[in-house]
Amino acid sequence: MRATLMYGPGDVRVEDVRDSRVEQPSDALVRITASCICGSDLHPYHSMPAGSAPTHMGHEFIGVVEDTGSEVSTLRKGDLVVAPFAYSCGTCQFCRAGLQTSCEKGSFWDALPQEGGQAEAIRVPLADGTLFKLPVTPDSALMPSLLTISDVLGTGYHAAVSGGVTQGSTVTVIGDGAVGLLAVLSAKRLGAEQIILMGRHTSRTDLGCEFGATDVVAERGEEGVTKVRELTGGFGSHVVLEAVGHMPAYEQAFGVVRPGGTISRVGVPQYEEAPVGMTSLFGGNVTLTGGPAPSRAYMEELLPPILEGSIEPGKVFDATVGLDGVPQGYADMDERRSLKVLLKP
Amino acid sequence: MRATLMYGPGDVRVEDVRDSRVEQPSDALVRITASCICGSDLHPYHSMPAGSAPTHMGHEFIGVVEDTGSEVSTLRKGDLVVAPFAYSCGTCQFCRAGLQTSCEKGSFWDALPQEGGQAEAIRVPLADGTLFKLPVTPDSALMPSLLTISDVLGTGYHAAVSGGVTQGSTVTVIGDGAVGLLAVLSAKRLGAEQIILMGRHTSRTDLGCEFGATDVVAERGEEGVTKVRELTGGFGSHVVLEAVGHMPAYEQAFGVVRPGGTISRVGVPQYEEAPVGMTSLFGGNVTLTGGPAPSRAYMEELLPPILEGSIEPGKVFDATVGLDGVPQGYADMDERRSLKVLLKP
Repeated sequence: MRATLMYGPGDVRVEDVRDSRVEQPSDALVRITASCICGSDLHPYHSMPAGSAPTHMGHEFIGVVEDTGSEVSTLRKGDLVVAPFAYSCGTCQFCRAGLQTSCEKGSFWDALPQEGGQAEAIRVPLADGTLFKLPVTPDSALMPSLLTISDVLGTGYHAAVSGGVTQGSTVTVIGDGAVGLLAVLSAKRLGAEQIILMGRHTSRTDLGCEFGATDVVAERGEEGVTKVRELTGGFGSHVVLEAVGHMPAYEQAFGVVRPGGTISRVGVPQYEEAPVGMTSLFGGNVTLTGGPAPSRAYMEELLPPILEGSIEPGKVFDATVGLDGVPQGYADMDERRSLKVLLKP
Repeated sequence: MRATLMYGPGDVRVEDVRDSRVEQPSDALVRITASCICGSDLHPYHSMPAGSAPTHMGHEFIGVVEDTGSEVSTLRKGDLVVAPFAYSCGTCQFCRAGLQTSCEKGSFWDALPQEGGQAEAIRVPLADGTLFKLPVTPDSALMPSLLTISDVLGTGYHAAVSGGVTQGSTVTVIGDGAVGLLAVLSAKRLGAEQIILMGRHTSRTDLGCEFGATDVVAERGEEGVTKVRELTGGFGSHVVLEAVGHMPAYEQAFGVVRPGGTISRVGVPQYEEAPVGMTSLFGGNVTLTGGPAPSRAYMEELLPPILEGSIEPGKVFDATVGLDGVPQGYADMDERRSLKVLLKP
């Protein structure tokens, strides 16, 4: 079968690899019908350490179940399923608490060095707990939106839920990538009154406004902080959704948050240490929350509005490629010619 | 009048100073009847920068209103009052939200260079918003417990409330100082099922057990983390209440917190940067919260159980001094001969 491998910074290749197959009794083999490239795939695309082994890429996909292990009880051949970006047992205390990214048995896809979602097929461990059945056919026009519950919508929604966005909240979203835009959509869905989107790519912030942003701040750093403070009566934002992961975004976050407010991070932090002391978080009783989204936890909730058409998160996809087009898709996302690239293997 | 001033590390003096008096229309002059030395007073006692001007000390006190400015409407001469460790207007959006430490007009006592609570009298700004009337006389046997709602009980309670301690929670309290012990009492009051106290001073941890600790871990660092993990089935604690403020305590906190759990800090951080990335907070969706306690917000709630005798937070005081004894009181707390020193000016 064909699959996407990253060999190093800027070096993505589509190659023939060993066919994925059921290996464990709890596995399912899924033939992938829709997948995509993630903003977080760009982190290794920039800084994959030299000498690393080639890595199978992709962690967001929809596909058709082709085979199941002997222990799989809820899925059968032919089911159309979507996978979250972490696999999980569905039964441990963390899964039951809706924190499948901390599942006692599960992990992220990169724990499986021979599997990836930007490929023709994939072996899915703990299939009963991981996969979520979709009540449509693979040619449904809703496919782009349904694919977002695998990661980007789940992640934006996790940011907003963890941040405690509620009726009347003032929310600032940092980052106009797909996750940032879907954090806007999520904040709107949870009742936020003012949603300030910090981003400087007009085509993206326009989509952000369509998703519910009430204000756009293109300035960054101190200038951006000042602008957000002006827009919030000088007080700052109740909730800040940080969807970037770089230190300047974190600094903007504590610059614009209101005393007693919350910074919810879903951008994978590209730093380990950060300011948390008297002048950044502590003095103003600011809460820092968030983490890898347990997107599996939100699928039941996010499916109906997509099926009804009341939200259209699939609008974040602005390009579609086949497997051959994946390396170009990475380059296009990296150079911001594409917001998010859909893959039909 | 006589007041306590700090001149530098280890250098605390009681001196004759200018009498405090009403200066602004919203001020009250309070004759102090009970006050104390705070664990946080030991931070400058260790590291007050050379060349600093002498600083009036003390921010926790009970006293009798002796004079009021023309705008003060809720207090009159002779009222017995307790003050929180920040003064606040009581009417701005932050005060109304119960975050008086971020009051638009208020501040901490150290913003008033001529005033301190370890003195015979003090000028209290924004007296209507700041002071809380006590329905007892100054010679009440409840005085030590009532004094704790000024800071240490309010702070321990803030840790537990901000951390989301609830029925059945597993809680780890880091620090066996007065705040840590009252964080134990607060966690118990909020229904925590397991309360692990990390501390190595037996006389203090014994009091912690009296306040509700179910386990004591004397080990620190990695050894302590391992012990707490063992006590929590390998998973760690739902909530960690960090009542120290030094980096090793922060490191213990993220070592013992469970995925999806919360670290609530009330120890004044003696660091600005700290680990918050993938391997400390983010990866496990750990929430970091807390800050200076708005103890004013909790007074209405904490007064009744003290009056009823159902909690006895005043047990944290193990020494009483007059003003002359204050310098020795600092030394005794610094060298851990005293847990917390009560002052009767």
